[in-house]
Amino acid sequence: MSYAHWEIVPTRWKDNDVYGHVNNVVHYAFMDTVINSWLIDKGGLDIHEGQVIGLCVESHCNYHASVSYPEKLSVGLRVGHLGRSSVRYEIGMHREDRSELIAQGHFVHVFVDRTSRRPVEIPGPLREALQTLMVS
Amino acid sequence: MSYAHWEIVPTRWKDNDVYGHVNNVVHYAFMDTVINSWLIDKGGLDIHEGQVIGLCVESHCNYHASVSYPEKLSVGLRVGHLGRSSVRYEIGMHREDRSELIAQGHFVHVFVDRTSRRPVEIPGPLREALQTLMVS
Amino acid sequence: MSYAHWEIVPTRWKDNDVYGHVNNVVHYAFMDTVINSWLIDKGGLDIHEGQVIGLCVESHCNYHASVSYPEKLSVGLRVGHLGRSSVRYEIGMHREDRSELIAQGHFVHVFVDRTSRRPVEIPGPLREALQTLMVS
Amino acid sequence: MSYAHWEIVPTRWKDNDVYGHVNNVVHYAFMDTVINSWLIDKGGLDIHEGQVIGLCVESHCNYHASVSYPEKLSVGLRVGHLGRSSVRYEIGMHREDRSELIAQGHFVHVFVDRTSRRPVEIPGPLREALQTLMVS
Repeated sequence: MSYAHWEIVPTRWKDNDVYGHVNNVVHYAFMDTVINSWLIDKGGLDIHEGQVIGLCVESHCNYHASVSYPEKLSVGLRVGHLGRSSVRYEIGMHREDRSELIAQGHFVHVFVDRTSRRPVEIPGPLREALQTLMVS
Repeated sequence: MSYAHWEIVPTRWKDNDVYGHVNNVVHYAFMDTVINSWLIDKGGLDIHEGQVIGLCVESHCNYHASVSYPEKLSVGLRVGHLGRSSVRYEIGMHREDRSELIAQGHFVHVFVDRTSRRPVEIPGPLREALQTLMVS
Repeated sequence: MSYAHWEIVPTRWKDNDVYGHVNNVVHYAFMDTVINSWLIDKGGLDIHEGQVIGLCVESHCNYHASVSYPEKLSVGLRVGHLGRSSVRYEIGMHREDRSELIAQGHFVHVFVDRTSRRPVEIPGPLREALQTLMVS
Repeated sequence: MSYAHWEIVPTRWKDNDVYGHVNNVVHYAFMDTVINSWLIDKGGLDIHEGQVIGLCVESHCNYHASVSYPEKLSVGLRVGHLGRSSVRYEIGMHREDRSELIAQGHFVHVFVDRTSRRPVEIPGPLREALQTLMVS
């Protein structure tokens, strides 16, 4: 499958668990990191001061193969669905050379007002940016 | 909904993220911790030396409300499906007094041989233990 | 050695690293968690809205023995030095039954204004609370 | 100060804590990661099967400035002391462009037999590699 944005994500020593591979929990930190760095860099999200923030309401991962520190991952990101106030990201975690799919997940953000934590319409510039992550 | 096993899980300072609540990634650490502690304590799993280990092949979480350190969670665990070599756990994370459901997830273990990492039949005593987690 | 405050801290599955024991990094999460939960509970620290917050400027740990999930720790806390705007905590991490000292560390907080991040005098009520952690 | 080895280390979303910057605990994960990746890559350490492993017996960090996700760090590594079975690493964490020192730490490994966990003499090839990290 194809992704609209790619990022190389290194693993950390502590990511390996007692079974010698990156623990299943860590894959969600990869998703969170790639999504938010894209939102900050391309979508104009201000995680410290902005009035609109993205809260995770659902996440999912299927694990196909294991990966171990000190390996790096090639993480692909695309948008699967773009709603009024929510967006569904689809993430593919691959070996660094993209030779193998390690894990595949999705992650749903609802954009809310920072103070009230009530859903708000995705601001125009962010919506336009998110549309560039949609893969036909 | 009802669960067969309950555990109180405290949060850590570092679990709170920049938005002031426990980060979505951490909920999977709660699942992993409650499942494995039950497996070690009740299912006889030996995570250091045992020939059979459980690998996570799928996980999922829906987030209904936020929780913040220093709150504790009441985590409920049950088995939703018990296969030949796999098991699907269902986990409900609640406020400590169980007054509110914070998040709900599932987590699928495939039991494999530690060395070959090939699926094996769930050993009899472990299967019997897992059956006690099934809720009708 | 004696401590003024004790807390039981459980480990998590993910805390065990590839060498089968709780990773050295995690001990600092234990310190951070015990210190801040005490500050919130006994010192009146408001980590979300308070105008004064504690920033870590130094931390240290000596590791004497290993501990593994699913073990719990008994963590002792005391104040070793109380300055105008800073405080040095001393932390002893023991087996749950306190039969063995696992690791010993210290951790220095400087209290600052949340906005300017400049050091401020420790507020009176917090200072009084911290004094109760001093062991003669 | 000068370092013998440099590595760029990205931060993760989850590294930021409620105060908006990378939590003090995470700096130790950076140390651990840079040291072990060097040991694996240059020192021939086999973390999964090797008979000799490095256990952390002491770590320390002074925090000079804060850093926030999505910033990257430039981490410098050198050896300050090389003993019969132990080594003291010194680590400097800087902004990515090395314009500012964020934090400075040390970390002591004792090399032990994987099974007995008793100290062993640092193997010749590893010692020779570690000597290249000494800065006069």
